[in-house]
Amino acid sequence: MNVARRLDAFLSGGASRHVILTNNDDIRWLTGFSGSTSQLFVDRHTGESILFVDGRYTERAAVELDASSSSTHICEVSATSTMVQQLQARGVVEVATNFHHISAARFHDLRDVFKVSDESTVLSELRRCKDAEEIAAIEMAARIADAALAHVMRDGILGDTEKQVRFRLENAMNELGADDVSFPTIVATGSNGARPHHEPTDTVIADGDCVVVDMGACVDGYRSDMTRTIRVGQWSDAYRQMFSTVKKAQQVGVDVVRAGCAGSDVDAAVRRVFREAGVEHEFVHGTGHGVGLYIHEDPILSPRCTATLSAGEVVTVEPGLYRKGVGGVRIEDLVVVTGTGCRILTLSPKELSCPRSQQTI
Amino acid sequence: MNVARRLDAFLSGGASRHVILTNNDDIRWLTGFSGSTSQLFVDRHTGESILFVDGRYTERAAVELDASSSSTHICEVSATSTMVQQLQARGVVEVATNFHHISAARFHDLRDVFKVSDESTVLSELRRCKDAEEIAAIEMAARIADAALAHVMRDGILGDTEKQVRFRLENAMNELGADDVSFPTIVATGSNGARPHHEPTDTVIADGDCVVVDMGACVDGYRSDMTRTIRVGQWSDAYRQMFSTVKKAQQVGVDVVRAGCAGSDVDAAVRRVFREAGVEHEFVHGTGHGVGLYIHEDPILSPRCTATLSAGEVVTVEPGLYRKGVGGVRIEDLVVVTGTGCRILTLSPKELSCPRSQQTI
Repeated sequence: MNVARRLDAFLSGGASRHVILTNNDDIRWLTGFSGSTSQLFVDRHTGESILFVDGRYTERAAVELDASSSSTHICEVSATSTMVQQLQARGVVEVATNFHHISAARFHDLRDVFKVSDESTVLSELRRCKDAEEIAAIEMAARIADAALAHVMRDGILGDTEKQVRFRLENAMNELGADDVSFPTIVATGSNGARPHHEPTDTVIADGDCVVVDMGACVDGYRSDMTRTIRVGQWSDAYRQMFSTVKKAQQVGVDVVRAGCAGSDVDAAVRRVFREAGVEHEFVHGTGHGVGLYIHEDPILSPRCTATLSAGEVVTVEPGLYRKGVGGVRIEDLVVVTGTGCRILTLSPKELSCPRSQQTI
Repeated sequence: MNVARRLDAFLSGGASRHVILTNNDDIRWLTGFSGSTSQLFVDRHTGESILFVDGRYTERAAVELDASSSSTHICEVSATSTMVQQLQARGVVEVATNFHHISAARFHDLRDVFKVSDESTVLSELRRCKDAEEIAAIEMAARIADAALAHVMRDGILGDTEKQVRFRLENAMNELGADDVSFPTIVATGSNGARPHHEPTDTVIADGDCVVVDMGACVDGYRSDMTRTIRVGQWSDAYRQMFSTVKKAQQVGVDVVRAGCAGSDVDAAVRRVFREAGVEHEFVHGTGHGVGLYIHEDPILSPRCTATLSAGEVVTVEPGLYRKGVGGVRIEDLVVVTGTGCRILTLSPKELSCPRSQQTI
């Protein structure tokens, strides 16, 4: 991906002259470097940027910055103190950095040397709207997840453990060309589904279960995110009711998404469906979030969201209901915001069922 | 695992009365709770401890704290501000926390309300020596990684890509009962081996290659860590020489490990072998590190290490040589420190070869 325009936008996007960036995704977005340890120094007056890496990453940084046509220089240092000395030698006395992305220990180290201020929002704002290459990578990741889920559904999941289904899904995504999984896959069956962030266990998926599967693939650093709730055999009335309410709320939420609408509007539309069904108290999280290099980016679609959606943003719409001792239902799509609505990237069917017998499907 | 004694040790292990812990592994070690978002408040005067979780984790926390016989209370809060209010209502005015484990943003939020001090070393010191249950979990994880490597070697790796080998190894670990992988598996073939932290690519493993594989499994939260360097077909003199030097250095390092020796002694012994072979400049990282709930724990075995090893500590010994444009060799064992030496947990053979033809091995 060509990063030149991104650095230009960052140079004119903030007030502080000297900035130190420490977040891997921020640095990848601005330079193309994908290593896990680096710091990027930017001088907004001269337009100069320097990527500080240790000896493990020098070669990789050179290759990756070249591939992304980055104008950033590479400087190998063995310790942060060396970087600090180099910046002092350049006459730097004040630096801005993102206080959410450095530890309190690191903050105190920097403050011993520089006047340090917080610059938390510039890059997260810039990263919200994705360009065509970014959307293509996310879409490819979504395709891989769709195919992996279809592959695992074809063989059935009745009698498997949650962990087995997790590993089958992740293995399928890897074989289909994912660089990695987007996050540890959630598989929650029966009453485990009442925990939105359940980690897969050895619980066996049984007839009549309601199985929440939350999964994504990673392509060129970009992530996908999708949740489906699978019916195994015949469902109880409780599951059927929860599913139809969530499915309706999710569709209503997707229908609201378009450039210019408030993030809180999407959340409110979803919440209205749950309120009318008398189950709003069972919806214990926000409606969605941005997705890109990181799995939870701005904007966050919640009642407190003050952002307005723009064309090119990629967000999830993922209402769910969670009933203790019973189970849960969540349905999540990943969508690209457009001027007239949105384009859905996650194409797996909403109604997925696994028959009692695995012989036929 | 029974955590009662751990909390007792923590209560008497530091000077500050009120402590807020935010690191997941610290909290898991003290309470048994394995969720990814929580904060633990401890009052060293009263001995009371409170685990603050949000609604997603209340049920899981209750189950896990009960299983580990934890005396910690659970308090559900929807936001950190609610926790802060509760602590203020208890008369808390000063809190200690680990500055490496909170962001600068969070530090400033806390500082607006409390007098905040740094308590960075108490828990990492306590967590260094593993009890029998912890060692059993790490050993089980090491067994799984051994078996997974043997499984993949049986089928051969010639002609596979680095990514394919990664996913075969990880899939095998998962099928053999790992909860997860310990870290993203490194597979680096040919000249890619010159990068210690290479991420697997689509590079095909070819005849004559030297393949560095760094892998581990996770069992009950505890991790294993092992590196082997695999010979594919016939090696060049350069590879043969690098391998025999690293193998010798690694054995020398393991031989030095015993309770009472300095961490820097292990590093120095390894470095001496490389210096005598004239290749010390190709050894670009430290010799080892502790392993437990986290993959890189104290002590760090480097020239700057001031720690003395104690019986029950679990550390890696992992010298390597990295030659740009040529490749790399690293050999890593995970060992338990004992009074007379150490016990090696990683049992895979040091010399692993994959024949030119995959028909026979």
